[in-house]
Amino acid sequence: MKNIDWNEKGDGVIIIDQSLLPGEEKYIELTEPEEMYRAIKELQVRGAPAIGIFAAYALTALMRQELKPKAIRSCCGASGTSDEGFIQKLRTYGDLLRSSRPTAVNLGWAVDRVVHAARVEMFRARKEQPDRLNVNAGARRLAEAVKKEAEAIYHEDVEMCKSISRYGMEEMKRIAGEKGMEKMGILTHCNAGPLATSEYGTALGPLILASEEGTLDFRVFADETRPLLQGARLTAYELQKAGIDVTLICDNMASIVMKNGWVHACFTGCDRVAANGDTANKIGTSAVAILAKHYGIPFYILGPSSSIDRNCPTGSDIPIEERDPDEIREKFYEKPMAPEGVKCYNPAFDVTDHELITAIITEKGIIRPPFDKNL
Amino acid sequence: MKNIDWNEKGDGVIIIDQSLLPGEEKYIELTEPEEMYRAIKELQVRGAPAIGIFAAYALTALMRQELKPKAIRSCCGASGTSDEGFIQKLRTYGDLLRSSRPTAVNLGWAVDRVVHAARVEMFRARKEQPDRLNVNAGARRLAEAVKKEAEAIYHEDVEMCKSISRYGMEEMKRIAGEKGMEKMGILTHCNAGPLATSEYGTALGPLILASEEGTLDFRVFADETRPLLQGARLTAYELQKAGIDVTLICDNMASIVMKNGWVHACFTGCDRVAANGDTANKIGTSAVAILAKHYGIPFYILGPSSSIDRNCPTGSDIPIEERDPDEIREKFYEKPMAPEGVKCYNPAFDVTDHELITAIITEKGIIRPPFDKNL
Repeated sequence: MKNIDWNEKGDGVIIIDQSLLPGEEKYIELTEPEEMYRAIKELQVRGAPAIGIFAAYALTALMRQELKPKAIRSCCGASGTSDEGFIQKLRTYGDLLRSSRPTAVNLGWAVDRVVHAARVEMFRARKEQPDRLNVNAGARRLAEAVKKEAEAIYHEDVEMCKSISRYGMEEMKRIAGEKGMEKMGILTHCNAGPLATSEYGTALGPLILASEEGTLDFRVFADETRPLLQGARLTAYELQKAGIDVTLICDNMASIVMKNGWVHACFTGCDRVAANGDTANKIGTSAVAILAKHYGIPFYILGPSSSIDRNCPTGSDIPIEERDPDEIREKFYEKPMAPEGVKCYNPAFDVTDHELITAIITEKGIIRPPFDKNL
Repeated sequence: MKNIDWNEKGDGVIIIDQSLLPGEEKYIELTEPEEMYRAIKELQVRGAPAIGIFAAYALTALMRQELKPKAIRSCCGASGTSDEGFIQKLRTYGDLLRSSRPTAVNLGWAVDRVVHAARVEMFRARKEQPDRLNVNAGARRLAEAVKKEAEAIYHEDVEMCKSISRYGMEEMKRIAGEKGMEKMGILTHCNAGPLATSEYGTALGPLILASEEGTLDFRVFADETRPLLQGARLTAYELQKAGIDVTLICDNMASIVMKNGWVHACFTGCDRVAANGDTANKIGTSAVAILAKHYGIPFYILGPSSSIDRNCPTGSDIPIEERDPDEIREKFYEKPMAPEGVKCYNPAFDVTDHELITAIITEKGIIRPPFDKNL
């Protein structure tokens, strides 16, 4: 089963609820726009590429609901009977989904792509009958265009992950060969594996591919990644499932693990890469990069080229999502683990300075500094 | 009520159970050696100075149990009727407690002190009657000497904390004055406050003193300190209780907080300082120090001079306690938060390289590099 798919009727999306892993492998069906918004917001679906795929699938499902006779949906004003109305509705849904998480660039990118695909289809229909006024492609044709685009986003992601995985694995082999080590150690933060993408993943892709290939002896240290424990819950789960030697550590143990000489490279995903190479990723990524630099360990960012935001000159232009303090104080716990009412600061992401990054591995290749020139 | 005290009869120790804070403020009475061992092992009492005080109090209580008529205790072989027997029993109990946590130097130091005090008393008795053979001071007199030594350790710790707090506060004022800041920010890791000592604490002492004095405007960022959350449970609790502006963060957020310019100094405690200044403290301390260096923020170790272990040339000679993986996988949680059976690495401490330390603040003053010369 895929992590993200349409339901049988095509008017809803089925996802594995990542917020319940690793204890429960539960698939849920989402048909309402608010459910879809919450699924992103509350991390039932997460990981920059997966959010993009999900948004495209969700918009497809929602617009297919519009094809039902007399479909009246309250969340947008336009009637949806004309192409313009259809696109207006699509935009409204897209804006809702887009607002769920401000940091990931793939979300807005995927929304823009499906809206663009619908618009292209609208103009194509007009061109087909240039001598008539008020030509409409029709909702069915536009919905088909949206679906095609969503499928393209999915399939491109599969190819993208495979390509990143290959480049990443080559880099692992290069490092292992150079240092002539017995068993290579990779440290990763948060989760950028199959669950966060379509298949393979970005940061975990090279590991899964290398494990499948079986020519490299390596082990992985997974930061648990507080407060939401994506490393413990998802990365350890995915790597264990793939039969990879994985050791779970708390985030604050990365330093001793590096000092012990057990880590030869760090691989993390990314939510947004600025034009100068500064990279926003899960909170704590910048700390891993600073520690890696201190210990002389190469630090890699792995992600699709769609994560690169040329409109964003530097990391300080990336908005950083702040989340509910209760994620730190009480979520997951039997009882609150901090004094009542204590202030918390809970940013979901931080920005890793480009000077700390050895290379950015995308599906198009390995980009090395100077990033402002090479990106 | 003191955090560590004898019970009314003097044959047991009463402590606040730190493992239940902040939800429950429960005092527990310990009379059995195994209970006392477990209290240290399972962090019902914790913090290097507090463990030392507790061990001395526990040994006092246990040896007072020996004063009861026909006391027969199974945990040690000697009968306890002669001075040598008394000291043998004291040593046996001391060795038991000492084995509970290998990293803290104060624990062994406190055990050695009370054993030494008993031996001094034994020799004093012999000297008083130099012409007689087999002179015994008697268990009552030796137990009194042990008690006196335990009280001395406690009172010295009170003075030590006050002195460290004054030196630390002066350093805070110096930094605040130099940089002319509006509101000073201090980041701390784990817990080195009143609960970890007799009063005031070491790393938190300057903050509590400065708050009492009220002349300095400052706020504190407290790392939650996984896996056992001493920062969330104890530091945030103590600082909130003291009316200090405290913000709780996850360990992996220290980097962004520093990058935001909110931190002007880091204060942490220590479990053992090697002769060259390398310092063992709670896991993650070395990461804080590396981040602080990266961002140009001074990093201070605060602790009693008894934490300095001259027999330990460098940090690599300090044994690092490894603890149960379930502390990472499931402790505190409603349900396990990692896949079943996943490997974990759970070191309780790490060593911060002396080159990362701006100064070590002890009760005797502020020690600056070169530490090998100045310690």
